[in-house]
Amino acid sequence: MATPERVVPGWMTGGGPAADIALSTRLRLARNLAGEPFPPRQDGTAASRVLQRVGAAVAALPQDHGAYRIVRMADLEGPDRQTLVEQHLISPLLALRATGAVALRADESVSIMINEEDHLRIQALLPGLQCAEALRVADAVDDALNASLEYAFSEEWGYLAASPANVGTGLRASVMMHLPGLVLAGQAAPLFSNLAQMGVVVRGLHGEGSAAVGNLFQISNQVSLGLAEEEIATSLQAIGRQVVDRERSAREWLFANRRTQIEDRVARAYGLLTNARLVPSAEAAALLSDLRLGIDLHVLPHLDPSLFNELLVRTRPAFLQAAAGDQDHPAVRDALRATLIRQRIAQAERRSGKD
Amino acid sequence: MATPERVVPGWMTGGGPAADIALSTRLRLARNLAGEPFPPRQDGTAASRVLQRVGAAVAALPQDHGAYRIVRMADLEGPDRQTLVEQHLISPLLALRATGAVALRADESVSIMINEEDHLRIQALLPGLQCAEALRVADAVDDALNASLEYAFSEEWGYLAASPANVGTGLRASVMMHLPGLVLAGQAAPLFSNLAQMGVVVRGLHGEGSAAVGNLFQISNQVSLGLAEEEIATSLQAIGRQVVDRERSAREWLFANRRTQIEDRVARAYGLLTNARLVPSAEAAALLSDLRLGIDLHVLPHLDPSLFNELLVRTRPAFLQAAAGDQDHPAVRDALRATLIRQRIAQAERRSGKD
Repeated sequence: MATPERVVPGWMTGGGPAADIALSTRLRLARNLAGEPFPPRQDGTAASRVLQRVGAAVAALPQDHGAYRIVRMADLEGPDRQTLVEQHLISPLLALRATGAVALRADESVSIMINEEDHLRIQALLPGLQCAEALRVADAVDDALNASLEYAFSEEWGYLAASPANVGTGLRASVMMHLPGLVLAGQAAPLFSNLAQMGVVVRGLHGEGSAAVGNLFQISNQVSLGLAEEEIATSLQAIGRQVVDRERSAREWLFANRRTQIEDRVARAYGLLTNARLVPSAEAAALLSDLRLGIDLHVLPHLDPSLFNELLVRTRPAFLQAAAGDQDHPAVRDALRATLIRQRIAQAERRSGKD
Repeated sequence: MATPERVVPGWMTGGGPAADIALSTRLRLARNLAGEPFPPRQDGTAASRVLQRVGAAVAALPQDHGAYRIVRMADLEGPDRQTLVEQHLISPLLALRATGAVALRADESVSIMINEEDHLRIQALLPGLQCAEALRVADAVDDALNASLEYAFSEEWGYLAASPANVGTGLRASVMMHLPGLVLAGQAAPLFSNLAQMGVVVRGLHGEGSAAVGNLFQISNQVSLGLAEEEIATSLQAIGRQVVDRERSAREWLFANRRTQIEDRVARAYGLLTNARLVPSAEAAALLSDLRLGIDLHVLPHLDPSLFNELLVRTRPAFLQAAAGDQDHPAVRDALRATLIRQRIAQAERRSGKD
């Protein structure tokens, strides 16, 4: 069973290119097995057969692909499924599917969802902005699985998928970006509307329909059909690079022109995070965003940026619910969240020699 | 000229009976000189004559009354007048009157306003809840001045005054109370409406028409006519005592039933006050109220209650305006206020051995 302590994906450590703004890059390929009904039309027998076939293909991956473990949704309690969602290792949809499963690579850089909307969703999750590398990782897994699995493929349309939006390359790439500068400078909305005209979708952290939490946005390609995989990855990389530059400019402008206000904002977030006894989830995300901005701007030079990534995930409701156990209740979670944040910051400060 | 550093009234040191809740007691006697027009009908000559006569009487007070200095409003800049208002040594009305003056006893426990609404307003300002002692102090000054000044007095009505509300004893007593428990428990409004039916007026900190700032309320007698001075003082003392008890009960209830919420509130106030870089005036009062509650409830046992009283006065706009000098601007004041608060708390913590 997946426990919160064990699963720490690479992007949480905060490395990678432009990782001060682009926290992580995720790229997924939608694939389906030839001759099997798509998951929305599956019965239990068909689902089991797909899981069995994919499981065997994963087990047969060459040694240099690393070790995988397969976790079936049916074997997980709700909170543990939710924990995987909050780590971005599975989608909210997979968590709802009793016939779903996920194959997780030991280093958490690859997760293969099974029986989500498509039979396979091969996902690469890397720290920082690296669309080309994410494509390389996902392609390698795709090719290796394709050695033992026959995919549903049409010469005319490309890879077939349950939803027309995914037909073609079956590729969707997205970059999670921390954009407090653009938000504070009031430049986020106009930029996002420009991006939309270029076929780029901007969403809040937790996927479709969710509002931005902690100034975190997912920027992803809209179109899968009619473009080569490399084109999609290169295009999103370039757009991500532009957004990074815009965010840097916004931060520089704010720091030059609103320095005291920014320092006040960061200092307040630090004061609340290191003192509050009850911190709701949305407030934690907002305060952690301010803290991270302060770290990036060297207002809080003694703290490491990875603290933000780690706390962002560890303070999500499901993580804390797992920690609260039987005592689970929103107020208990808010108290646990506050304690966790205080302890982690204090620990980081002891390590850095402050205090 | 009165400077902020020099003037620290006794109530700011935080002592006196029930001083955890009743910060200070103020008692004033309205008196007018026989044969002189009341201030609202005074011309400049009459005002000068009154000032000259009262000044001479103050100078003639027996040695055991302590030293007095007389400050004329015409000699003060606006911010310095406002500073005296914020220390509760003069009224906002006196600050507006060019012909007004105040005689201040060296220990700041007595201030005699001259040419406010009446010729004399003899005020005793003591720490804690002590209406009888405040009456004794004011009476002693009143009697001593009466030895050289003839008051406007009617056998039928008592002391005459510019406003009918002050005819009779000319006495108004008020207690400044810090009531965060009643406010947080939602019991303040019903209590105040009961008090109103008993002829007791409840106002926000800065007098008539002002909203409560920092959970501070002035509780005072409504009626001056038809009651003996002692009756008024005894009655307000008893009512003050009741409010103190109600506030204590509310705090006990909150601490027993909402402990984490109260601790969170106090810890957040501490975190913001010790970190923020810009603190507006109203926020400072609200956070200082939470801080003081935390000190009283031993959530912050290392801090002294007098810190609250002192910061409450020193963070008022006029005090900071005096400190800001030429640079005066709301944002500059907010930054000065934040710095002052951070420094004073840090200083208090160094003294108490925390840190």
